Parts: sequence; C-alpha cells; structure tokens
Amino acid sequence: MAITIPGIDDLLAAHDRIRPFVHRTPLVTCETLDRMTGAELVFKCENLQKVGAFKYRGATSAVQSLDDATAARGVATHSSGNHAQALSLAARTRGIPAYVVMPTSAPAVKRDAVAGYGAEIIPCEPTLQAREETLARVVADTGAHFVHPYDDPRVIAGQGTAALELFEDAGPLDAVITPVGGGGLLSGTAIAAVHRAPGCRVYAAEPEGADDAARSLAGGVLVPSVDPDTICDGLLTSLSERTFAIIRAHVTGIVTVSDDAVVQALRLVYERMKLVVEPSAVVGLAALLTRREAVAGRRIGVVFSGGNVDLSRPWF
Amino acid sequence: MAITIPGIDDLLAAHDRIRPFVHRTPLVTCETLDRMTGAELVFKCENLQKVGAFKYRGATSAVQSLDDATAARGVATHSSGNHAQALSLAARTRGIPAYVVMPTSAPAVKRDAVAGYGAEIIPCEPTLQAREETLARVVADTGAHFVHPYDDPRVIAGQGTAALELFEDAGPLDAVITPVGGGGLLSGTAIAAVHRAPGCRVYAAEPEGADDAARSLAGGVLVPSVDPDTICDGLLTSLSERTFAIIRAHVTGIVTVSDDAVVQALRLVYERMKLVVEPSAVVGLAALLTRREAVAGRRIGVVFSGGNVDLSRPWF
Repeated sequence: MAITIPGIDDLLAAHDRIRPFVHRTPLVTCETLDRMTGAELVFKCENLQKVGAFKYRGATSAVQSLDDATAARGVATHSSGNHAQALSLAARTRGIPAYVVMPTSAPAVKRDAVAGYGAEIIPCEPTLQAREETLARVVADTGAHFVHPYDDPRVIAGQGTAALELFEDAGPLDAVITPVGGGGLLSGTAIAAVHRAPGCRVYAAEPEGADDAARSLAGGVLVPSVDPDTICDGLLTSLSERTFAIIRAHVTGIVTVSDDAVVQALRLVYERMKLVVEPSAVVGLAALLTRREAVAGRRIGVVFSGGNVDLSRPWF
Repeated sequence: MAITIPGIDDLLAAHDRIRPFVHRTPLVTCETLDRMTGAELVFKCENLQKVGAFKYRGATSAVQSLDDATAARGVATHSSGNHAQALSLAARTRGIPAYVVMPTSAPAVKRDAVAGYGAEIIPCEPTLQAREETLARVVADTGAHFVHPYDDPRVIAGQGTAALELFEDAGPLDAVITPVGGGGLLSGTAIAAVHRAPGCRVYAAEPEGADDAARSLAGGVLVPSVDPDTICDGLLTSLSERTFAIIRAHVTGIVTVSDDAVVQALRLVYERMKLVVEPSAVVGLAALLTRREAVAGRRIGVVFSGGNVDLSRPWF
C-alpha cells in the first residue's frame, strides 16, 4: 500500500493553517551549556507551546484541515499523553467535540488535564486491544474523525512547523536534534531541514530503555518498541512505516542516552535555563552533553519537545 | 543628610552601560492566568536574566560605572543571596576581583554558586554586627569598592532597566507590580514608570511574614523588618531611607500575600507557564490572583524577579 508522505508544501500550508492558534515559541541560549558542550546551542522551546508541547501543532494542523461537515462530528484519539490534551484543546478551539479513549490506569492528573480542555473521556481496559476496540466503537457511534498521534501526514506536517520557525529565527545551523518516540516530530523536522536548511544534518535521541528507533535505523528494518523502560514517558511508542520511511531517507543518526543522563540534563535546564521541561524533552541535550568531542565547534538547534511533568516526582 | 535619588537620565545611562552584558529578557503571556484573574497579564521574565535574577542588572550597572583605578581594586558586598552571585559575575565580566562576606550558616549551594562565579568568600559569624565588621575589614585590607544590594543609586538605576524594557516591549499598561524587599527593584520600576509610562500605576507585593514595606508606606514612617518569617527568602530585608523616599513618592500601594498564596502561584507558573521561578518572584502574581475584583479588565505588567530555587525543596 502506498504511504502518503508530506512535502515542504504541506508543511508550509500547515504553518499557515495553525499560525493563528499556536505560539511562535522563543529560542533560548545558555552560556553554561555552550561551555559544557563546546558547541553553540539554540533551543526551540516547545515546552512553552500551548498545552505545553509541540503536539499542539500537529493536532491543530489536523483539526483545522477538516471540512465543516466532518469537523462537526468531532475528533477522537486513544492516548493518555500530550496528544490527548493537544487534540482536546484544538477541538475546543474549533468548537467541536473531542473523544479521548484512555486506559483506566492513566493517572488522575492526565485525565483531569484532558477533561479540563473539555474533551469527553471514554475509559477502557489498559490493553492495546481494548484501546483499539473502544476507539473503533466511539468512531462508529459518533462519526468522529480519528486523529493518530503521529502516523498522519497532517500531524507530521504540523510538527514540522517548529523546525520551520527554528530555521527562520536561528540562522544557519550545522545540525538539529529532536527526541524520537513515534517519529512525528523527527520526520516533520527532517522534511523541514531538507528544504529549508539543506546543509543542516538531522539527528534524534531516545532513551536506552526505548531504543527501537535507533535499532530500526541501524538495521534498516522497523523494530517495534517492546516493554520500554524509561522515565521518558513521551517516547515509549514505536515508529510507523510512514515515519520510518521519512527517517530512513533524511536522518543522519539516532543516539541513545541513559535515564541518568536525562536526569542530569533535566537538572541543568531547571537550574541554568529556569525552564520546566519533561524528561522526554531533554534527551537531545543529554546526547550532546555526553558527546562533547563530536559536537564541539558546531552550531546546533535543540528542540525541547514539552514541559508536562508531574512536579511531585522526586527526580532531584 | 541629602539622599541621592536617580532620575530617568540615570536609568537610561545605566541601560546603555549594561546593555552589552545583560539579557533583554522576554515577555511572556498565559491565557490560563488571564482567565483566572480576569486581567491581561504581561510577565517580564527576569528569572531568565543572567545569574537567574534582575540583581545582575544593578550589579553590572555599579561595576561598569567604576573608573579603572577603582575597579582594579575589586568590589565587595555582604550577602548570601542573588546580589552576591550577581556582583561576582559582574566583577568577573569586568576582569576584577569580588569579595563576598557570607555567614557560616549560609547553605552550601549558595556558597558554591558564588565561588563558581570566581568570587572570594570571606566567612563570618551569622550576626549583622559580624557581617558589617568583616566587610569593613575586607574593604580596609583590599581597597575594594562596596556595592550595596539596593541602597545605591547606580544599583537602583540598573534595576529600573527591566521596567524600561517592559514599557518599550509591552505597549500601554494600566499597572505594573513587582516584589519588594529592600526596594531596589520597586524604586527603579517607579522611576521608569513616572517618565516612560505616566498613566501606569505602580504596585508592589510582599509576604505577610515580612510586611515592613506595606506598613512603612501605610504609616508614612520607615518600619524595619524584624524577625521576618516567610518562604520568600529574597524579601527579608528592610527598605532604606533612599528606596522609601522613592516609594512614598511614586508607588500607589503595597499588598501582602500569604505563603500559601505564594505556593499556589508558584505551582501555576511551573505547571502553566513552564517557568522556574523562586517564591519571592511570584508575590505579585499571588496578589493579583487573590484580588480578582480589583484587577479584572486591566492590562498589568508583572515582574518575575528571579528563578534561583533549591529544587529539592518540597513545595509541591
């Protein structure tokens, strides 16, 4: 079956579509981190995006692309993470219903966040099968339009708009690095780079305990994520055939980092940059901090993907 | 004795003097907080300033105003807070020594921060008398120039530059609110407002457990801070005659907030704005959140004064 891959025109169209609804997030620099890595780092702060994550770009891109009749029936997804919050707010902003299938095991703080954006939560058993069956039933009952967290060209195009802004605002970069979970942010970034920053290499980072993307890229075969074990709760999912195809074509390398390195990077960002970020957001910085010899002298864009974190977690 | 009060020319000169060395910190907005207060809030993020606090403006203003011969002998202060870090980095940036008198009771994290900026730490007993005597001895021994944390026209002019930027970048404001401890930030802000935003009222907030500024303004007599008790460790000091004179002339009101209200405001800033701020920084926001009826419909500038916080503290 043919796979639809978004092009640069799709990213530019998505950017026009979402511009009235999303923050153009700031770039931030930090002398301490430049000194520690020997590189010149430019951070794109998607933790300061609405709902606290880049996911709001992709969700808004999808929701705003629907025709009125489709939109009126609402949108649906199965997620307990940032995509659920993002889709809920994107739907509310368009004035349409959102249905979120969420396992009964999801923490109350996540349920509350989604409910706070006005979505209807449909509980299900905490298995993949129950989740998919429940979603299918919701879609059949309501006529809602399913928006996948990453395996969707409109979502990928939306996520790529963060890199469009980075390249416009930062000037020339030798490389850009993002986290990789399902690959929506990474593949959108790669498409943006190929067309808007041709000399800029694209890298990703992921936790050692969820290294399916690194193994997939290294082996040339899509390896699913099985029993991931990491504090980076936004990076547990597997690539799709679509995101893997884009990543194989355009991504130079995927590096893995330990959870200890993630905690150290988190602490530096809180203490030195005064920014709240979630563990998943700093895998790229953790990768740079542990590979000083490879990055010294380079000018590197680093995407902080989100800042939705349980403040009572004892990381420090 | 006559008191020297800086004017708008001094603020503009300070701004020119410090511009190469300080961050022009960003303004940030937050729909959730606008909804909660009914106001339109514009936050000036001095937590993102170098050394994590507006204090770097005043310290740099003072250090960069010294003639070469005076500067060469170094600068000195007694402080265990943000001013000590700020003066240390300002001195290092100019390539001169800094001497910081610090009580032996100061936490290691604060000593390490000052030492990390290259200052020499001179320990003293944790009493005001020991602190002043030790400072006098250091100044006599080294010829270093004493830079007070707030009772200094060059420092006040430097702190006022944050408000100059706020008024330039935010457009018209009905009011501005800052924390008040010794009054350096507040009096600098007031001078900036009088000349650069004549329609804008100036307010301050302070903790109930250190409400000397509110009582001083209400009673018209300078009341010293005695046995302050609050988590806002940057707001324990008393006004000086100089800052009190400026505040009496130009500040409309000083409101007090409970430590509980401070913790609630802290949590909102971390969760909703994804910014690391220190307790002292959010007294202004806490004041607005608890006075919705008074602030609804207004456009208000809020200065986040700093972000230097011990991440292991169990506030949440």
